Amino acid sequence: MSKAYGSMTSEELLTLKEDLEKRYGAEKALGLKLDMSRGKPGPDQLALSLPMFGGLMPDSDFSTESGVDCRNYGALEGIPECRELFSRIVQVSPDQILVGGNSSLNLMYDAIARAMTNGVLGGEKPWAFVEGRKFLCPSPGYDRHFAITEFFGFDLVTIPMTPTGPDMDMVEDYVNNDPLVKGIWCVPKYSNPQGITYSDDTVRRFAGLKPAAPDFRIFWDDAYAVHDVYDDHPDHLISLMTECRKLGSENMCYIFGSTSKITFPSSGVAVFASSADNIKFVKKQMAVQTIGPDKINQLRHYRYFRDIDGIHAHMKKQAAVLRPRFDTVLSKLDSELSGLGIADWNKPSGGYFVAVRLTNGTAKRTVALCKEAGVALTPAGAVFPYGKDPDDSWIRIAPTFPSVDELSKAMDLFCLCAKLAAIDKLLGE
Amino acid sequence: MSKAYGSMTSEELLTLKEDLEKRYGAEKALGLKLDMSRGKPGPDQLALSLPMFGGLMPDSDFSTESGVDCRNYGALEGIPECRELFSRIVQVSPDQILVGGNSSLNLMYDAIARAMTNGVLGGEKPWAFVEGRKFLCPSPGYDRHFAITEFFGFDLVTIPMTPTGPDMDMVEDYVNNDPLVKGIWCVPKYSNPQGITYSDDTVRRFAGLKPAAPDFRIFWDDAYAVHDVYDDHPDHLISLMTECRKLGSENMCYIFGSTSKITFPSSGVAVFASSADNIKFVKKQMAVQTIGPDKINQLRHYRYFRDIDGIHAHMKKQAAVLRPRFDTVLSKLDSELSGLGIADWNKPSGGYFVAVRLTNGTAKRTVALCKEAGVALTPAGAVFPYGKDPDDSWIRIAPTFPSVDELSKAMDLFCLCAKLAAIDKLLGE
Repeated sequence: MSKAYGSMTSEELLTLKEDLEKRYGAEKALGLKLDMSRGKPGPDQLALSLPMFGGLMPDSDFSTESGVDCRNYGALEGIPECRELFSRIVQVSPDQILVGGNSSLNLMYDAIARAMTNGVLGGEKPWAFVEGRKFLCPSPGYDRHFAITEFFGFDLVTIPMTPTGPDMDMVEDYVNNDPLVKGIWCVPKYSNPQGITYSDDTVRRFAGLKPAAPDFRIFWDDAYAVHDVYDDHPDHLISLMTECRKLGSENMCYIFGSTSKITFPSSGVAVFASSADNIKFVKKQMAVQTIGPDKINQLRHYRYFRDIDGIHAHMKKQAAVLRPRFDTVLSKLDSELSGLGIADWNKPSGGYFVAVRLTNGTAKRTVALCKEAGVALTPAGAVFPYGKDPDDSWIRIAPTFPSVDELSKAMDLFCLCAKLAAIDKLLGE
Repeated sequence: MSKAYGSMTSEELLTLKEDLEKRYGAEKALGLKLDMSRGKPGPDQLALSLPMFGGLMPDSDFSTESGVDCRNYGALEGIPECRELFSRIVQVSPDQILVGGNSSLNLMYDAIARAMTNGVLGGEKPWAFVEGRKFLCPSPGYDRHFAITEFFGFDLVTIPMTPTGPDMDMVEDYVNNDPLVKGIWCVPKYSNPQGITYSDDTVRRFAGLKPAAPDFRIFWDDAYAVHDVYDDHPDHLISLMTECRKLGSENMCYIFGSTSKITFPSSGVAVFASSADNIKFVKKQMAVQTIGPDKINQLRHYRYFRDIDGIHAHMKKQAAVLRPRFDTVLSKLDSELSGLGIADWNKPSGGYFVAVRLTNGTAKRTVALCKEAGVALTPAGAVFPYGKDPDDSWIRIAPTFPSVDELSKAMDLFCLCAKLAAIDKLLGE
């Protein structure tokens, strides 16, 4: 059992520091060049989807079973086969789904951009004309979400994450009382970066919100809906849409998903799901923006997966690729940092990240030390609004891109740097 | 030689009408179901690009020559090979080009949407906050252009088209004096719907504009840059960017293009080109919107074409597919309507449309008669702002989708309907 740093004397800490610095020097000399900064799939994960480019698309056959010629204009809402397929992932009926291009982030951005200039169903005016508009940001969260609402001039309100999802007392207090609150960012399953799945109670409390703003929307980014890594004990998320339907609050739901982390990050298929009324409203706006999505790529996805069983079978293979990586990260954290009182972390059952909470005031320093020795981490602070972690404590680790061997080296370095930063903090340096 | 309707007596017209009505009745009885409404490629045109899905994309090789893994995130600006390739189409250097997704219309919409909420380089405020903002719309023009600026609340100002492009006296007067004028829609080569190519003088006058608004932009939709149909006498458009560079006015240029009418309308590649300063500014904004475009599809396009010669060779084949269609439309117009004093039309050397100007007050009626007998035309008025043709006289014919045989039938019907409408007009019915 390791001794907690907080109970060490200064001398003990200094001795330890000397030893760690030697090791750090040696690590630096290795000239590592590794990247754990973004949630990028590794080559072995990408290879799983390559059969999509084989015989599935013979020269002669680009029509859907429903008779759409995917090579030509049309089908703004996506091909019927994909609407059906993805309805199973996001737990919404097929007629309430639009299947779009290659990026769900783009769909979210577009949804807010349209709300800014032309408003949302039931809204009194476009959001651009709402002074002091606010957006709730459960944190730690996804930096690209926060960047969108920052770009559009929202005041970003940090909502603490709990093991069952965002702090719902605080969410209810804001949403139900403040008409300036127009939306909230959620990654409800295997959240980015903690891997937390919202509890049934949390989802029901979302469905039960009584927004002060008639045009309040829940941005439900179900990016990791089928991304079980430890598939012997997967998390289960109940359907927001189903819960909302019971309460007549479906219009709050803006649900997103994509195959970016199922097939190809730049060449996947993204979906937007909502109430029938919202879909009708949004489709009319979208008809001005584009003539339609890349249907050939949609057809390729449909032919590859066919149905939800096809997706689950594929994700089992993906889990086998990702599990050793998650194992490596978690076992390194366990063997190197547990018991020292300088770090906590979740053990997610799926998703794409592991989040580590370090001693306050040491996250930036840890990232800088790692960088100096050749390992790129997501910038400290990135998981909070405006890129500013008030405690300077959270680190997001993205284990999917490097190989297990590289990860192992990178995690050794990370733990070493976290220790050095903690010791300096304790010594007041 | 036919006799002009205007010089016929009422009796002659009534006799003619009786005969035409009999023929119309017979046409109706045929139960035609043909579509000349949109600029959609026909199956034989689409078939030209099908080799793109063959052996060009072996399972093992998704990297560009420059080393980008097209299967993963990254390359917001598009892959270098495509930037180089499309620079040749839009006549702008590769570093001033962003290669995007499947729709240049979407890129135009996005450019205006960003200007609405966050402004344009050099602008004083976002366009959403400019009361009474105006957009110039050379007409007849492209309905989807006009729809975008209508959606964003611009006052649409009709600028008459001339045989050398928009009426430049009027354009200069508006742009150089009215700071509320933020942009103008242009299809500079083989314009939609008339097939007019802007003269060298017109392009130079565009480059020489001295906008009253510092954030004025020319939306230069070079959709038909390589779309010669009669390639023995193609039109030539000089480069707006080159002319602007001479005068230091490059920041006015927002240039767009796509392969929608080269490869596949829903699965092509779109480009945005502008000054280096604009590209830098816009790229920063776009980084919030998306992580990047579908690079696999870009790679597919690059491998199929390789260089500008590859595109020209492909477009020669496409011209061979389209020429008989244009021949059919033009020869039917000639044999059925010339000399009657009820219709004028251009003879475009390329592009995707033929525009017919009928007797004032007969366009809607002609479209309705065609529809009743089973032939869909673009709605009358669509080629003007707000869908309202002040003279009710313009019709856009899209000859690319039907077969030659179908076109021949559809054009017979169209000419018949135009005659009937003209006679009724002359008879005051």
